[in-house]
Amino acid sequence: MRKLRMGMVGGGIGSFMGDVHRKASGLDGMIELVCGAFNSSLEKTIASGKALYLPEDRCYGSYQEMIEKEKQLPEGERMDFVTIVTPNHLHFEPAKMALENGFHVVCDKPMTLTVEEAKTLEKLVEKTGLLFALTHNYTGNAMVKQARAMVLNGDLGAIYKVQVQYLQGWMTAEVNEQAKIKPWRADPTKSGIGGSLADIGTHAENLVSYITNSEIAEVAADLGRIGKDRVLDNDGNILLRMKNGAKGTMSISQVATGEENALIVKIYGSKGSIEWNQEDSTKLIAKWVDKPQQTFTPDGIAVYDNVRAISRIPKGHPEGYLEAFGNIYKAFGLHLMSILENKTIEKPDYPSVKEGVNGVEFIYAAVKSDKENSVWTALKA
Amino acid sequence: MRKLRMGMVGGGIGSFMGDVHRKASGLDGMIELVCGAFNSSLEKTIASGKALYLPEDRCYGSYQEMIEKEKQLPEGERMDFVTIVTPNHLHFEPAKMALENGFHVVCDKPMTLTVEEAKTLEKLVEKTGLLFALTHNYTGNAMVKQARAMVLNGDLGAIYKVQVQYLQGWMTAEVNEQAKIKPWRADPTKSGIGGSLADIGTHAENLVSYITNSEIAEVAADLGRIGKDRVLDNDGNILLRMKNGAKGTMSISQVATGEENALIVKIYGSKGSIEWNQEDSTKLIAKWVDKPQQTFTPDGIAVYDNVRAISRIPKGHPEGYLEAFGNIYKAFGLHLMSILENKTIEKPDYPSVKEGVNGVEFIYAAVKSDKENSVWTALKA
Amino acid sequence: MRKLRMGMVGGGIGSFMGDVHRKASGLDGMIELVCGAFNSSLEKTIASGKALYLPEDRCYGSYQEMIEKEKQLPEGERMDFVTIVTPNHLHFEPAKMALENGFHVVCDKPMTLTVEEAKTLEKLVEKTGLLFALTHNYTGNAMVKQARAMVLNGDLGAIYKVQVQYLQGWMTAEVNEQAKIKPWRADPTKSGIGGSLADIGTHAENLVSYITNSEIAEVAADLGRIGKDRVLDNDGNILLRMKNGAKGTMSISQVATGEENALIVKIYGSKGSIEWNQEDSTKLIAKWVDKPQQTFTPDGIAVYDNVRAISRIPKGHPEGYLEAFGNIYKAFGLHLMSILENKTIEKPDYPSVKEGVNGVEFIYAAVKSDKENSVWTALKA
Amino acid sequence: MRKLRMGMVGGGIGSFMGDVHRKASGLDGMIELVCGAFNSSLEKTIASGKALYLPEDRCYGSYQEMIEKEKQLPEGERMDFVTIVTPNHLHFEPAKMALENGFHVVCDKPMTLTVEEAKTLEKLVEKTGLLFALTHNYTGNAMVKQARAMVLNGDLGAIYKVQVQYLQGWMTAEVNEQAKIKPWRADPTKSGIGGSLADIGTHAENLVSYITNSEIAEVAADLGRIGKDRVLDNDGNILLRMKNGAKGTMSISQVATGEENALIVKIYGSKGSIEWNQEDSTKLIAKWVDKPQQTFTPDGIAVYDNVRAISRIPKGHPEGYLEAFGNIYKAFGLHLMSILENKTIEKPDYPSVKEGVNGVEFIYAAVKSDKENSVWTALKA
Repeated sequence: MRKLRMGMVGGGIGSFMGDVHRKASGLDGMIELVCGAFNSSLEKTIASGKALYLPEDRCYGSYQEMIEKEKQLPEGERMDFVTIVTPNHLHFEPAKMALENGFHVVCDKPMTLTVEEAKTLEKLVEKTGLLFALTHNYTGNAMVKQARAMVLNGDLGAIYKVQVQYLQGWMTAEVNEQAKIKPWRADPTKSGIGGSLADIGTHAENLVSYITNSEIAEVAADLGRIGKDRVLDNDGNILLRMKNGAKGTMSISQVATGEENALIVKIYGSKGSIEWNQEDSTKLIAKWVDKPQQTFTPDGIAVYDNVRAISRIPKGHPEGYLEAFGNIYKAFGLHLMSILENKTIEKPDYPSVKEGVNGVEFIYAAVKSDKENSVWTALKA
Repeated sequence: MRKLRMGMVGGGIGSFMGDVHRKASGLDGMIELVCGAFNSSLEKTIASGKALYLPEDRCYGSYQEMIEKEKQLPEGERMDFVTIVTPNHLHFEPAKMALENGFHVVCDKPMTLTVEEAKTLEKLVEKTGLLFALTHNYTGNAMVKQARAMVLNGDLGAIYKVQVQYLQGWMTAEVNEQAKIKPWRADPTKSGIGGSLADIGTHAENLVSYITNSEIAEVAADLGRIGKDRVLDNDGNILLRMKNGAKGTMSISQVATGEENALIVKIYGSKGSIEWNQEDSTKLIAKWVDKPQQTFTPDGIAVYDNVRAISRIPKGHPEGYLEAFGNIYKAFGLHLMSILENKTIEKPDYPSVKEGVNGVEFIYAAVKSDKENSVWTALKA
Repeated sequence: MRKLRMGMVGGGIGSFMGDVHRKASGLDGMIELVCGAFNSSLEKTIASGKALYLPEDRCYGSYQEMIEKEKQLPEGERMDFVTIVTPNHLHFEPAKMALENGFHVVCDKPMTLTVEEAKTLEKLVEKTGLLFALTHNYTGNAMVKQARAMVLNGDLGAIYKVQVQYLQGWMTAEVNEQAKIKPWRADPTKSGIGGSLADIGTHAENLVSYITNSEIAEVAADLGRIGKDRVLDNDGNILLRMKNGAKGTMSISQVATGEENALIVKIYGSKGSIEWNQEDSTKLIAKWVDKPQQTFTPDGIAVYDNVRAISRIPKGHPEGYLEAFGNIYKAFGLHLMSILENKTIEKPDYPSVKEGVNGVEFIYAAVKSDKENSVWTALKA
Repeated sequence: MRKLRMGMVGGGIGSFMGDVHRKASGLDGMIELVCGAFNSSLEKTIASGKALYLPEDRCYGSYQEMIEKEKQLPEGERMDFVTIVTPNHLHFEPAKMALENGFHVVCDKPMTLTVEEAKTLEKLVEKTGLLFALTHNYTGNAMVKQARAMVLNGDLGAIYKVQVQYLQGWMTAEVNEQAKIKPWRADPTKSGIGGSLADIGTHAENLVSYITNSEIAEVAADLGRIGKDRVLDNDGNILLRMKNGAKGTMSISQVATGEENALIVKIYGSKGSIEWNQEDSTKLIAKWVDKPQQTFTPDGIAVYDNVRAISRIPKGHPEGYLEAFGNIYKAFGLHLMSILENKTIEKPDYPSVKEGVNGVEFIYAAVKSDKENSVWTALKA
């Protein structure tokens, strides 16, 4: 078998997420970058491509051009899938066009700006049978998978309480009017109707759903728009009711001063509970109704087999953000390889369009609830 | 000066809280137990008194008898104050009678079963000029005082976000129907209209108010009554809006399986934030917009003077729950001594009837909000 | 039964250790301070006594006077035991005189300045049958007792490795020549031949011995005397060989800049290992050959019965340094009460003269080894 | 510029270290694997090569063949450097041959089996001017670099104490005679005269030297050979004296039951101290004589510029073992690129032959000291 060939939309040299996607996709030696429409101009894209050792003729002036020209290349040469690494407002169109032209897709979250767009992609994926991965990267962590496995195996009993927070402080500078440039995440034309909701709230929503194997049914949201002339939420306090009957709280912020990337989830059931902290990602703390507290580690003693399988290095040697991100690509890559080899395998564990729809619905429900003084609002209309 | 003389209502030998109050009040050698109405019968009270080295004639069959008889003792002998260590429904009457008979009062929380009772006590204290301490013990921790001092001194800037949780798991056994006896905290005639709200929610409410030097203005509550035939809340997820404009979440539970006494508070301001965890009570973590994360410790470097002053032992030698509890008694005791010595001092830092009213109002607002599907409900009618 | 009556040598008002001994001994309501020779002058001792609510006629100008006069008091009034809270060089004489006059003794560590003195006390205790407690307070911690119980019950298998450190930084100021007064612990006439060895090394030695139920057989020591004109060691790096065959390292320091009271012990056996950190004293971490890491807590799930029994408050409510110290007094007090009541009980778990001899021998062996360029030196000559 | 071309000796598919070197070297898109002599037979090497998408004609039956044939390839095609990923006894010969044939070298540690071999390589590197990187990967961690920068900048003052441990438990199974296969690290013909000394002791030695910018002058070692028929050390307790005057302890073990990869270093100076724990690698704790404890993080506030520069992702997104390993390759790669481009740059920060010699000398000194009952033994004869 050969390496999988990836074309990238967005992610020019110097962009945080472009670099993350390249390193994560390349980690397991299964995927190679073959072309890109990295930047807003052909000139810049060519500069990016050069720094990435790409031939100039695979650097395209736009995603449209990339999709059209790659489609005309022979099967043994053209890209297999498109990865979309642009700001939120530039996810839908390239994803749609890629799918319509027979290319599989990997896409950053939130999937689209609107629920309608999200459902359009969902239908397209269903119709075309093409693969679609949404990079909710935190679900790629070994200890998140262990948490989910423990729920699925009934270790925690019936789940009745969740607590999730995703707190960052990097926008405090903007609030204090010391920021030199306004981030696109504060601009509704690029971020959509949600600010922190879109950027980090969807991660929190997805993580809780993933671990509990359930979905958020309704939310009661009280959002914050802290700072002068702030349009989009940069803070949120949200009550959750889940389909499995669990209740809980979500606290999100981009202005939680001093926090770096404090995504923490706690799940409580009738037999036990678990706690995971992204900044200390190689530990999963489990507390029990009848046993002393335990700490699970990747590749450590007594983790489930599917958890051990995703560790690339032995216990005690920390894997981090890039490796978890790489696990999304790896699962997607294995799926895609099976298709290219005409093998039928069960879909590996990676987030897809369904999770994308859920995320956008979550944003909309939270914004609506907040407008109506935190009234309970269902995600599914 | 002599030791202060304490009479105790409730807290017979074997009760958790009676022992706590005795150890905490005795810690600094300033207060001695001189009499008590410890148990439901005179016989049991005498047994308790004997174990506590009390003379039999200072063991009373009821709090009424204790107050009446002690009042008749000469000034140099009779108790100075009454401490009330009973279940919630037995706070109001003895507190009222003590105040009406000229005795200062120390009382467990929540102060009363109803808001009306709470306000009655508040007025009585105002009218009599007697001292009243409510044992919201967690505010006695050095690092909680450091947190408050940092807010008061503006170190954190404007406060705009709070997050508080108070999670215990000890009632999970009851939920799983394995508990042998039903705790009184699950019985509305003894606990009042709140279960977890009264037992631990009021601590969380008080702690947030104390540190931020503000009050909770309104709540949106979604309570849980987990388990068969459960009447009172044993779980709660609550949105908070504070008078200072801050918003936040509160998560409380007595069925958070595996948790011991996980009271954690995080406060975010425009310049910095702090985090305190009761189970790791000798650390205060501070994060900053422009400095690396710091960890403050009791008697450690750069704590405020009033914080250092309450450490009994040098840094690195942990003081715990009893010492923090003792700090409430110590502050109350210093206040009382100043009065007995006819000195005028500023009221030392301990919770009183105002905090007691706030706590009961918090319970009522949360229960009302929950009944009305989490509608925002003000604490002050 | 009545309270036990304690007379104190040293520990005048304002002294750290005097206050610790008073609070710790009073914690469980079993012991009362009845007399003292607290300070170097009668005048100061009377001032201390007044602050402690003692009658003036029980304040003595010297320990000799205290022992002589108390001896003449009637049985129902005189002190039961002497507690010695003085600098190291003032332990031996009062302890000896107390024993010779029929008083039980509680004594601070290290027991004496010389091995000869230590053995003299050991023989006196044996001869008189009086009780002697040495306040190696850290062994009073619940999690230290859990660690020892796990070793005794074979949970960890055969012990083959130990690691212990006791690091403080409070003397760095002296090293930097910023200290205003020279601490007596730096003065050989008061501290003995060991500096950090006497003050904290003996704690480390005792802790390792207690947990492993073994003794240090020989040491290879490389001591540090950091700072200008420093006479006594303020730092030490020591190899250990234990009687049970285990090997290990000890690192001690009073100039470990920034450390508060960092006593940490790790014990490794063929089945498992444990780790305890005094500054985080309510957790015991256990790691296993075949199970995930566990965290034990005082009064928590699955601790041994003798461990649970010493918790005064339920799990999650931290007990600290004073409570652990109080456990030494409590065990001693229960022993003494049994004797006063003519009951025969097994000696409760508290350190005594044997541990005192071991501690002084450890100091001497380490100093000797260091002088001879770290040659292995046996503790028992 | 083009990618750098790497040939690999050892590291066939399935080997832990081969995979680590491939992922780490590929992480930054600067280095590509072009050929290999991965396994003991050509057949297996070809299978490995196929899995790595290598053409069969670049898979060689031996390192000798690889070096000879690659040398004959045109400049635009042949490998630029050899990376050696074999057991210890197979480092020297391929490294020597590569250097003698003009290839730069990356080599696993310990560099060689004997001091003589190590010095031979050192001289060869000096003579040829070729680059040589030794993969002491832990020095690639951002927080280790911050620690070194703090020492170099005098933040900690004069360094006088070090404490280092490297504890693993994976060989306990062997000790308990439950291991199915004997690891090569227990075999003197493959590991050399040191067991744990070679595998992890050299990492500890290198880490202390790197951070303190000094070297270990002499050691007093007490090694353990725990288990039946054990030949090589699997445990060690070692006193250290450093060239800068600092003293300290080293504790190493492969039978520290339950430990995963517990490499912890603490460095104490006259102004402050630092602590780093490999298993929690994204934090550096600093304690100060006059400031509260701080926690530094990669890309966090107030880290030195050279530290920030090596973070690939923003603060709060953990980089781990592979990324730190990748930093060695990246520094080596930048050095090599500068040479291929005929630019002169200062040697980037990566370990080389000097560190390799030190490591082997450390092993020899420790083994010698242990044989002579822990007598102090100099590393440099």
